[in-house]
Amino acid sequence: MSNKTFNAQVRVTLKNGVLDPQGKAIEGALGSLGFEGVNQVRQGKTFDVQLEASSKKAAEDQLANMCEKLLANTVIEDYAVSIST
Amino acid sequence: MSNKTFNAQVRVTLKNGVLDPQGKAIEGALGSLGFEGVNQVRQGKTFDVQLEASSKKAAEDQLANMCEKLLANTVIEDYAVSIST
Repeated sequence: MSNKTFNAQVRVTLKNGVLDPQGKAIEGALGSLGFEGVNQVRQGKTFDVQLEASSKKAAEDQLANMCEKLLANTVIEDYAVSIST
Repeated sequence: MSNKTFNAQVRVTLKNGVLDPQGKAIEGALGSLGFEGVNQVRQGKTFDVQLEASSKKAAEDQLANMCEKLLANTVIEDYAVSIST
């Protein structure tokens, strides 16, 4: 079985209710720069991962596994995986 | 004219060709954890912004402006804005 190459995007964001001081600082900075109407800013991380797997399902499983083990701290963070190719 | 509330996602990623030592470190760590078939990892940032604007177009313009002025370093980073509501 030959492997295919997949391009995936992983988004890791803070769970609701977890304080985000960095986001708050950006909110404040946007206000100082004159941007009005900004209610909330939350900062997260994104990973563009190119990987080889036998199927899209296998790639998704592997990416979820990577998030659990390394990319996200699941105590305070959520993750979302989307595969484009 | 009453303003509406928009939820936007801003992705800020390194331009192609810009070295990403953090991504390389994650690649190495995934390999050490036994994940095979990972060709490349690039790390970026994501911002969830809730803002009020008169229209979707106005919100997009304002977000692009925020990226140019604060959220992204356009010398080395690209940004993409998507509005969900």
